[in-house]
Formats: sequence, structure tokens, C-alpha cells
Amino acid sequence: MEIKIMKNILDRNQNKADEVRNLLKEKNVVMVNIISSPGAGKTTLLERTCEVLKNTFRIGVIEGDITTDRDAIRLKKYDIPIVLINTEGGCHLDSHSISKVLPEFELENLDIIFIENVGNLICPSQFDLGENFKLALVSVAEGDDKPVKYPMLFREARLVLLNKIDLLPYTNFSFDNFYADLQQINPKIPLFQISCTNGSGIEQWLKWISAQIHSKSNHTA
Amino acid sequence: MEIKIMKNILDRNQNKADEVRNLLKEKNVVMVNIISSPGAGKTTLLERTCEVLKNTFRIGVIEGDITTDRDAIRLKKYDIPIVLINTEGGCHLDSHSISKVLPEFELENLDIIFIENVGNLICPSQFDLGENFKLALVSVAEGDDKPVKYPMLFREARLVLLNKIDLLPYTNFSFDNFYADLQQINPKIPLFQISCTNGSGIEQWLKWISAQIHSKSNHTA
Repeated sequence: MEIKIMKNILDRNQNKADEVRNLLKEKNVVMVNIISSPGAGKTTLLERTCEVLKNTFRIGVIEGDITTDRDAIRLKKYDIPIVLINTEGGCHLDSHSISKVLPEFELENLDIIFIENVGNLICPSQFDLGENFKLALVSVAEGDDKPVKYPMLFREARLVLLNKIDLLPYTNFSFDNFYADLQQINPKIPLFQISCTNGSGIEQWLKWISAQIHSKSNHTA
Repeated sequence: MEIKIMKNILDRNQNKADEVRNLLKEKNVVMVNIISSPGAGKTTLLERTCEVLKNTFRIGVIEGDITTDRDAIRLKKYDIPIVLINTEGGCHLDSHSISKVLPEFELENLDIIFIENVGNLICPSQFDLGENFKLALVSVAEGDDKPVKYPMLFREARLVLLNKIDLLPYTNFSFDNFYADLQQINPKIPLFQISCTNGSGIEQWLKWISAQIHSKSNHTA
């Protein structure tokens, strides 16, 4: 009896993610779930991305944050729809919270929704939000051992962005070690080296994400 | 009836932390719970600490890691007792796991146990492991907004170590903003600026932690 109840709960969770995914597919909206450690550069990546892509695509953002609105405020200048979810101590977003906030957007008028998940390499990897794909963002300042130490995210993600490569000369980060570990975990995953501070590699990322939007939604610029 | 069961479970958790704390007090062992984001420098801090303090104090380490033994291996060179807990996906340690591994140490022959928690600013802050105190470690590369965005850790900790200050010239980290936010959250908490890479500020930290060991355990060097 109890086992049956548990199964129903699990089913409901997955059903909600599928519900979100189906709704977005119907509305032709791509959804990307950005996951990283605290301070790896999720918001700065979104700044770099919105400032260029808002001229080509209709962008929405869901900001996941424990308690503040600081990241959401940083993105206000792009005049795009932003919904903030404060988890109040919760360490990740889930599909139920995404489902609840989607009605805040006019989905017919969007091409893509970026979700900035709560800063955490672990728990967010374990939850399907109904996204098209997860994006793993990691900073060279965190060290080259992150893929092997937090493998689930790197297994789940469709793309890895290695950020803050402008700090490379000042750290003992070994790109070879990082790459070798990543290959073990997810051999086919693309990896771009970027710096959201000096703009290095951003062009390649923008090209890649634009192609994802085009291929999924069939919108043209 | 159900509420009663829940209360028993919660009581058991806190009881276990208290049990750990009482055992360590009886054995005159200080326990420190080190919490940070992935890659903020917990293991490098322990390297810096062990290489000096092992000549003065008898040190043990509990390594919390999701899946690898990499951090534990880095500390093997100090010839100190190390116990590794692989959480297998779990995002924090809890008092039950600490209680289970304590018998692996000869507590009579230890002055201090450092716990390196799983790399995560959120969940580890919420669990009492039976430690004497929590230590918050944060890297300047993570940005100056960490106290306000992850307040629980900075409220719970007895000391904040701001690591990687050697990277300060290459980031937009504002010490004034960081300090002002920290003051709002925990006005009396001491804050040391350190670099585990170039050794800056390490002396101050070693002096502080040595004083904690002396005052708690009454061991003399």
C-alpha cells in the first residue's frame, strides 16, 4: 500500500516535467536549464547572451535563487520577461515550481527560456524540469577535477562551458586533466572555453545556442 | 500519529549529533565542519593546515565526497588518519554518517578532526554533524555576493575564510561589498583573507585554529 503511494508521487513528479516539456513543444519554446556551482558565472553568461540574442530571439528567464532578487535585477536592463523563484532554503528547482511560473510568460511570444538554477553542482542535476537540455557551466577557478567529482551533471548535460579562462594563467588548472576526465564521463559532449568577463569564446556559444533554437523551434531570425 | 513518528525521527537526528558532540567532548577532541562551494579550496586549506599543525597537534580528517577518493589521496602524504565517506550522490554529510565512522579513529590519540564536507554551500549548512563549529570557506573567484545569496552558512559559521585573494587583481570582487553584506548577516563573525596558493594569511588562520584547539581541549603543544 505504502509502496503504491510512493510510486504515485514519483510518477506525478515525472509527469509534471513531461507536462512542462509538452507544453513548451506545443508553443515552440526551447528551455535550457543552466547548472553550476555558486559564482561560476551563470548570471554573467545570461548577460552576455541576452545583450546579443535579444535582437534575434524572444528570450525569457526563470531565476532560481534561495532568497534574493540580485540576479534577476542584473538582467532587468534587457527588458525581457523574468520570473524569479525564491526557494527559501531549497537547493534546487523542480518541475512543479517551473510549471507554476510558466503562466507568467506569454509563451506564444517566446523562442527560448533560460533557467538559472540555484548555485549547486549536485541536487539540480537530479531533477528534470521539463527542459530541452541541461547546460553545465564550470569556472577554471574551481579546479580541473570537477567532472570526476560531480559526474552526474557532466553526464546529464548537452554542453559544457568552461568559464573564466581569463584566470587560467593565475591558477594551476590543467586543461588536459579536465578534458581527459570529461571524456571518461561523457565522451561526445561538446566543450567550449569562454570568458564572460573579456568575451573570449562567447561568439562560439552564441552560434551554438542559436542553432539549438533554430533546429528546435523552426523560428527564423 | 504520523506527526508523532516524524518528531521521533527528527529527535533521533539531533540526538545523534548531540551523541557525537558528547563523545568528542569526553575524548577532548575538537571537530570542525568545513563548508564551501565546489573548488573553493577546502582540500588545499587542509594541506596548508596539516603540513604545519601536524607537528603540534594530532589531526584526523573525515573526507566527504560524492564518489571519488581524490581529496583523501591528496592528504595521505601527511601520515594522519583519514576516513573517506562517499555519499554516492548525497549532497551533504549527516550526523549518522559521522557517528558511524568515528570508531575508525583512535579518539584518545587525537586533538582535532577536520571534516571536509561535500562541496555545496546550501545543504551542508542545514545539518548539525556534532561539530564544535562550522567554518565557511569562500573564494574571491565566486564573486562578492555569496553571503547575501547563501546566508544560512554565514549565519551558522564561527569563522569565514576568504580564499584565493591572489586572484583579487583579476576579478571584479569588491571586498567592501562582501564585508558589508557579511556584517548584515553575522556582524560579529571574524573574517580572514587568505591564499592557500601563495600562503598569504595562512599564519593568522593557523594561530586562530590553534587557539580553538587549546581552549577547547586543554592540550598544550
